Amino acid sequence: MTGTNFDVLGIGNAIVDVLSRTDDAFLAANGLAKGSMALIDDDQAVTLYAKMGPGVEISGGSAANTIAGISSFGGKGAFIGKVRNDQLGDVFAHDIRSIGVDFSTAAATSGPQTARCLVLVTPDGERTMNTFLGASQNLSVDDIEENQIARAHTLYLEGYLWDPAQAKEAFLKAAKFAHKAGRQVALTLSDAFCVDRYRDEFRNLLKQDVDILFANEAEITSLYEVSDFEEAAKQAQIECKLAVLTRSEKGCVILKDNERHEVPALKVDELVDTTGAGDLFASGFLFGLTQERSLTDCGRLGVLAASEVISHIGARPETSLNDLAKSHGL
Amino acid sequence: MTGTNFDVLGIGNAIVDVLSRTDDAFLAANGLAKGSMALIDDDQAVTLYAKMGPGVEISGGSAANTIAGISSFGGKGAFIGKVRNDQLGDVFAHDIRSIGVDFSTAAATSGPQTARCLVLVTPDGERTMNTFLGASQNLSVDDIEENQIARAHTLYLEGYLWDPAQAKEAFLKAAKFAHKAGRQVALTLSDAFCVDRYRDEFRNLLKQDVDILFANEAEITSLYEVSDFEEAAKQAQIECKLAVLTRSEKGCVILKDNERHEVPALKVDELVDTTGAGDLFASGFLFGLTQERSLTDCGRLGVLAASEVISHIGARPETSLNDLAKSHGL
Repeated sequence: MTGTNFDVLGIGNAIVDVLSRTDDAFLAANGLAKGSMALIDDDQAVTLYAKMGPGVEISGGSAANTIAGISSFGGKGAFIGKVRNDQLGDVFAHDIRSIGVDFSTAAATSGPQTARCLVLVTPDGERTMNTFLGASQNLSVDDIEENQIARAHTLYLEGYLWDPAQAKEAFLKAAKFAHKAGRQVALTLSDAFCVDRYRDEFRNLLKQDVDILFANEAEITSLYEVSDFEEAAKQAQIECKLAVLTRSEKGCVILKDNERHEVPALKVDELVDTTGAGDLFASGFLFGLTQERSLTDCGRLGVLAASEVISHIGARPETSLNDLAKSHGL
Repeated sequence: MTGTNFDVLGIGNAIVDVLSRTDDAFLAANGLAKGSMALIDDDQAVTLYAKMGPGVEISGGSAANTIAGISSFGGKGAFIGKVRNDQLGDVFAHDIRSIGVDFSTAAATSGPQTARCLVLVTPDGERTMNTFLGASQNLSVDDIEENQIARAHTLYLEGYLWDPAQAKEAFLKAAKFAHKAGRQVALTLSDAFCVDRYRDEFRNLLKQDVDILFANEAEITSLYEVSDFEEAAKQAQIECKLAVLTRSEKGCVILKDNERHEVPALKVDELVDTTGAGDLFASGFLFGLTQERSLTDCGRLGVLAASEVISHIGARPETSLNDLAKSHGL
């Protein structure tokens, strides 16, 4: 697209993941809802961390993972998010810049530490997340530059951004700038509990400010407060310009105007860790859109990227998604 | 053994590893000697890190990895090493304590940051290490308590400890306390370049203060300045009480008095990352000794632990070595 330097610009919480293997009994004993994301404060983070087994620190953050995927596909990504000027902040900044992503948000020099997500991975590969938002909470409208937003083909926002109070304003400002420049705005609902916290705001947002919606089954049924996926899909087809609904091993459903496309999931040899599955699906789909591929090809690219990230520990690709796409004839 | 609370007490540099995949060209372009450990200062660490790809942070440190292995075998381990009171120091302390290891060395409250090792892993699974010693350099005789040393069946020391100037004194003091209490002192030579830096001191140490020596082929030939492994082995048999020489895919050679035992290596399905292979070999061997197993059984336990750690990223076991030993009839 003329006038763009970036394929996708993501705005999200800048988080370092602490991944640790555990079992269902540990989740139950600590009252953690399997497969979901819970917000925890500093004290809770200290307490839970002390109970957890040894961990592995890897850069994460939902939209940041998606942008890492864009880069792996060979696209040009940019990311806006807030770290503190501490060791984990350095790790986050290094990791995302080292893969060619533009990341220039100023690190906070005071206030809480860089955000951490304590990710508990059970033997079935499912991840249960506990996020200490830390410095992410300081992302504000001051971190949004119109000129940068205008230069990205697609602006991508995570629903989790609704949790830090100031970030929501940054989110809305960025969406306004994007539309003013004639760009697309994409949103992921992030988590069913997150949808529950901000249902009405999200529904309004989808009607007014969002061109592309990503949601999984739990999120879309929570959004429309229905128990049946098909009912939710029907509603999404009416209220969203383009809705991309992921269904884990059932693949995805893409809804646009009166069109409906389904793309099956790929079989994975060994499901190791589902962390990042949704984030990387969005990478593939959005990369496809920037390349003006058909909606079903976009879905196939999403499914492919998701299948790579769930085959190993961590939420960012370990192999070149560009090579992987080629080897799959995409 | 009567009067002991710990099977093995390790003293070493307390390090967080930053593992990153790279290729041989990157090593060559940056003048890095493949498979070895180089010491780097803060500036060099910043420069190399900036050039590296995205990383994964995992607790490491040679002796610390060995003690983690002791714990995984079901033994009781203790570790002495110095971190700074910073985020990576918290990570190191959490990870080692969370597996039941006694770690009570006070963190430094000033001075350099917690030690980091930039570990570059090439496609053949070989690791090339660049260590910023940081807070490790502040380990001193004040961190050694006679009472704790006396309560461990075996004291285990890494040759890398010779690099931070003060740590050597701590090392010698600990060895004295161990022998005074009638305990065993084990040493690993750590790295061929490390041997080259301290050859004479190590040779004296082996004659006087060390009961069990661990070395790989490059280290033992460097120690005795010979090119042939068998010549080095002959020398070790004369000068060491018990020498355990590891030879990668050729397994290990155990030399004691006039005895010589050989244990073959185990076939590994996929060699992913050799980081920690020597450290975990020592875990198995030392754990066997604390259980009064035969020398060949000790070697088998060492080989088994090494085979586990090279089958995944990171230098600490991901599966229970106790279960693994049982499933191998050990």
